[in-house]
Amino acid sequence: MQRRSVIKSLATGAVAGGAAVAASTFPKPAIAQQTFRWRMQTTWPKNFPGLGTGAELLARLIRDMSDGRLQIEVFGAGEIVPAFETMDAVEGGTLEMGHGAPYYWLNKVPATQFIACMPFGMNAQEQNAWFLFGGGQELADKVYAEMGTKFFPSGNTGTQMMGWFNKEIHSIEDFRGLRYRLPGLGGRVAAAAGATVVNLPGGEIPPALSSGAIDAAEWVGPFNDLAFGFHQFARYYYGPGWHEPATVLDNFISLRAWEQLPNDLKRIVEAANRAVNSTVLSEFVARNNDALEKLINEHNVQQRMLNDETLTALGNLAGQVMNDLASQDAMSREVMDNILRFRKDAMAWSALSEEAFSRARGLDYTYAEPA
Amino acid sequence: MQRRSVIKSLATGAVAGGAAVAASTFPKPAIAQQTFRWRMQTTWPKNFPGLGTGAELLARLIRDMSDGRLQIEVFGAGEIVPAFETMDAVEGGTLEMGHGAPYYWLNKVPATQFIACMPFGMNAQEQNAWFLFGGGQELADKVYAEMGTKFFPSGNTGTQMMGWFNKEIHSIEDFRGLRYRLPGLGGRVAAAAGATVVNLPGGEIPPALSSGAIDAAEWVGPFNDLAFGFHQFARYYYGPGWHEPATVLDNFISLRAWEQLPNDLKRIVEAANRAVNSTVLSEFVARNNDALEKLINEHNVQQRMLNDETLTALGNLAGQVMNDLASQDAMSREVMDNILRFRKDAMAWSALSEEAFSRARGLDYTYAEPA
Repeated sequence: MQRRSVIKSLATGAVAGGAAVAASTFPKPAIAQQTFRWRMQTTWPKNFPGLGTGAELLARLIRDMSDGRLQIEVFGAGEIVPAFETMDAVEGGTLEMGHGAPYYWLNKVPATQFIACMPFGMNAQEQNAWFLFGGGQELADKVYAEMGTKFFPSGNTGTQMMGWFNKEIHSIEDFRGLRYRLPGLGGRVAAAAGATVVNLPGGEIPPALSSGAIDAAEWVGPFNDLAFGFHQFARYYYGPGWHEPATVLDNFISLRAWEQLPNDLKRIVEAANRAVNSTVLSEFVARNNDALEKLINEHNVQQRMLNDETLTALGNLAGQVMNDLASQDAMSREVMDNILRFRKDAMAWSALSEEAFSRARGLDYTYAEPA
Repeated sequence: MQRRSVIKSLATGAVAGGAAVAASTFPKPAIAQQTFRWRMQTTWPKNFPGLGTGAELLARLIRDMSDGRLQIEVFGAGEIVPAFETMDAVEGGTLEMGHGAPYYWLNKVPATQFIACMPFGMNAQEQNAWFLFGGGQELADKVYAEMGTKFFPSGNTGTQMMGWFNKEIHSIEDFRGLRYRLPGLGGRVAAAAGATVVNLPGGEIPPALSSGAIDAAEWVGPFNDLAFGFHQFARYYYGPGWHEPATVLDNFISLRAWEQLPNDLKRIVEAANRAVNSTVLSEFVARNNDALEKLINEHNVQQRMLNDETLTALGNLAGQVMNDLASQDAMSREVMDNILRFRKDAMAWSALSEEAFSRARGLDYTYAEPA
């Protein structure tokens, strides 16, 4: 590494000193470069739409940008260890890398659930801004260092659906006694409303719903939920996604492996994650409506929205649950307080910009039409 | 290049055939690699917040990821050619790369203005989804190939403000006779409402407003507008940004220069742009509210919103203007129709997800509080 650094800084110096000549090229000194071969397991089924394919895209971008110097083999949930043991496997050195969602690690470090998303919290655009310009990346790195890993946001689902139910939900009382699959802080809110909340990796939800082991489940949104076939097991599909307005996917890397990478590969992994982060969100934004239309028109799903009274009750419970958790754990407090301050500013700007625009484009005017 | 390709495919073959061994490394054959040195001019003042710094970030990411094999020197507006001649300079071979906004090139290829953003069109999240999963990248490449360039989305402003006025706007009639700086399709709509519309590069707006050469101007939003000091020249600051709900910034690359890059550098440029695209948007989302508060509280700016009647009249004009333009130009028609179809689906999903969530989090409940 020492020798390589010297050569690099000499090369940089030579370039900085030279005059700018359009498209000039000159040969670079030949350097023997290391190739790294890593393994990544995801918490998703192999190649699952949007989520698993996002992890595959990450590996492909890194391989292509590094010209093969960092090769990452991707494994689906359970191929090496069970889905929810992926973090342990990275922490323990079995894997170099994992891909999942932060709230899957709440039993290891509770603050992870605040990084995943907060009920009634921020949308995806705000969540990304928090990571890059609100101190979120630094806080998340601090939280993930507790698990021996480096953190990158690596996809976002955008606003989810509240999920699949076999009965209509008219009030907060209707959550009582429900056996409901819902992870993270949203799950704690549903538990506070009287539900029996379970967390299951995605691949285990369809059999649990099918067998009646659970009564209700949320997963992501129409594009992903159609892929799992939840409409076969429950009739009512509820929004809005108060519980997960913009769930972060995480790419976590063994700190030991990370620190072995030269700087150019570190920057490649970082930029690849930033590219994947927006690509995954874009896919959900592009594909959810078509999937929802299929669910409604071909599978006779009843799409419903919670009423304001129920949402308000959930908002109050969310406030209590999060205040309680933050009072028990200093790191959760630090993350939550930082997000709350950022969210307040972001909401003020959103009201004047995105929200005011959405309202304006919904007014009654005659717009352009395709030919 | 021939020799290099063979070596690469051999290396790839060797890796694909080997067993996956965690963190194993082996030396790669030493290859003499070309270094490329390019020049990029932006349409923004050098290092202008968010926009110019976005272009600098692009150059830095590419340099760092390529370990110095692709070095891009960044110039501000006017440093090599005038701002609005940047595309000509790239097309003509004076520069390899430029950074600006698509509607600056509408006199060269009219369809560029549809790629920049459409009045009452899509928000940033939808715009990004259109590029990646709605065919937008392919259409934009086709449009930019007419100017001898390769296109990448390279930043987005998010929803802008309608701009700065010396009088209040109560109805569509109040646009009549205004000398108003407003580019792209939004400018054509304001012209249809009777304004005298001019386009000026950013750096020329403050003197034009100051001298009274123009009465009104829009630029971007609070973070950027505060940097130019528009509050010194106009009192009323209007929203919402019906005219530019999510303006795309463009990175355009001489096709001759692009085609000389090996595949790994092409993928690096592509991923760097995708990373910059979301980073620029994140900066606006993170910083606009603070800047707006400064404008209102320290500079006594009067922030106003257009009423629904005026917005509806503008929506009708937008529809007419865009239908007219599309009927005159086949490429504009192709781009517009594609966007209109994507927008319809995106709006349906947005209503159930982002918009329903925004409404829910605005209800009256007691949320968590920082300690």
